[in-house]
This record gives sequence, structure tokens and C-alpha cells, in this order.
Amino acid sequence: MKIYFACSIRGGRDNATTYAELASYIKTKSTLLTEIFADGKLTPDGMNKPSNDIWTTDIAWVKESDAIIAEVSNPSLGVGYEIAKAEEWDKPVLALFRDDGSRKLSAMIDGSPYTTTIYYTTLDEAKSAIDTFISTLT
Amino acid sequence: MKIYFACSIRGGRDNATTYAELASYIKTKSTLLTEIFADGKLTPDGMNKPSNDIWTTDIAWVKESDAIIAEVSNPSLGVGYEIAKAEEWDKPVLALFRDDGSRKLSAMIDGSPYTTTIYYTTLDEAKSAIDTFISTLT
Repeated sequence: MKIYFACSIRGGRDNATTYAELASYIKTKSTLLTEIFADGKLTPDGMNKPSNDIWTTDIAWVKESDAIIAEVSNPSLGVGYEIAKAEEWDKPVLALFRDDGSRKLSAMIDGSPYTTTIYYTTLDEAKSAIDTFISTLT
Repeated sequence: MKIYFACSIRGGRDNATTYAELASYIKTKSTLLTEIFADGKLTPDGMNKPSNDIWTTDIAWVKESDAIIAEVSNPSLGVGYEIAKAEEWDKPVLALFRDDGSRKLSAMIDGSPYTTTIYYTTLDEAKSAIDTFISTLT
């Protein structure tokens, strides 16, 4: 089972610790295609590669994946884009939104019939949603 | 010529005045499908409709459009999602990024071979990019 984990990079790394923890957790359950995204030290500059190289690599990973898990608590053009690509290629998508009341999730994600959105408040809730999602894939 | 103008809603309305001005400008050149997005008074809560209603309306507009113009200076899940949907349906996409040096544009937008990205610093530059883009459509 190959999972593409998507999280905000250039949009901001406010929740880098959460991202790293979720990515590590997914890695215990499946092949994680986006190990670099789990690196808590990644800065908003993202990787030091040209944008078109990053696009080519990441899009190939989305295509290769069996499913996508996206952390969507922060606004991110890239994560929104990847979710739509995953839908285009009929990949199951789980979107995890930390609901602290400060922000409303985009209606394009929250309202999509092709993406399963789960609101969480604790990491344990997010991990439990990942367990449930992965169990539906096998 | 029907244009879908995309800009950050729930991701934040920091540039609401810019959005309104660009949307008004597009309206002088074409049929603007997303007039409500041009409303400078729209708050981050977005429209007071359920997310799935917004998704259904907006996705139908993307499908109906001849082309998409997206303001991508702020991170936004919805705008990223809509750009990918537009690419899926072979719509020409223009992404306008105000380059003030504070932020790097997502590699998924900046590096996509299916989206034309233009960096601007003044509104006049953005309007000129819109003129050029629309002239290639007709």
C-alpha cells in the first residue's frame, strides 16, 4: 500500500511537528511516498529544486500512490491542487482538518463528494482516522 | 467568453481589494462567472451556504468556463483545487502572483506545465497579463 502524504510546504510550516508525527505514523502502516514532507526541519522555501522538477516528482508520486492523506489545517495551493489530481485519478482521499475554531476549511475540500474529510482536535483522533481510512483500502 | 476568477476566500482575504479590482477588470473583457468573489466585503467565512452547495456551484462554473484566471498570492486550498480541476478539463489557466519577496509560490502551480504563471508587482502589470491571456483565447 503506497500512501502520498500532502501537507503545506511553501504555504507555511506552522504545524510542522504535527505533519512529521502524522507522516511517521502513516509510515508504520504503509509505504510513505513523501518521506521528505515529514521532515520537521523543512522550511517554507521548500526543497531547493526548480518548481517544475518538484511538480514532476510530486505528480508522479500522486499517480503512483494507492491513496492520499492530506493535512488541510493550513491553506495551501499545493495541497488543494494535489487533492484534485488524486480525485481525477480516482485515488481515495482523506483530508484531516484540525478544528480549533480559528478557521473554516475550504468548501472545495469540505464539500467535495470525492474526498473524505475528518475534523480532529487531538493527534490520537487523527491517527484513528488514518487507521479507519487505511482499513477501507485493503 | 466566460471566465472563472478564483481567489482566496476561507484561506484569508488579505488582498480583497486587489481581488475586487482584478475581477472588475475581467468583467469589462468577458462574462465573469464568479461575480461574488469580486465583492470586497466577502469575509473568510465565505458564503453562508453549506460547503457541498458551494462545491457544486463552483465546480459547475469551472466546467462551464472557457478559461480560469486565479489570483495566487495567498495560499488557498480552494484555488489550488480549482486550478487542478481546470487543468483536468483542458481549460487555459492564468495564475497571477504578486511578488513582494515575502513568500514563494507553490511549486505545484509555479511548476505546472498546464498553467501560465505571471509574477506581478503592480495592478497594471496584472491587468496587462490578463489582456495578453484573453487575447490568446479568442
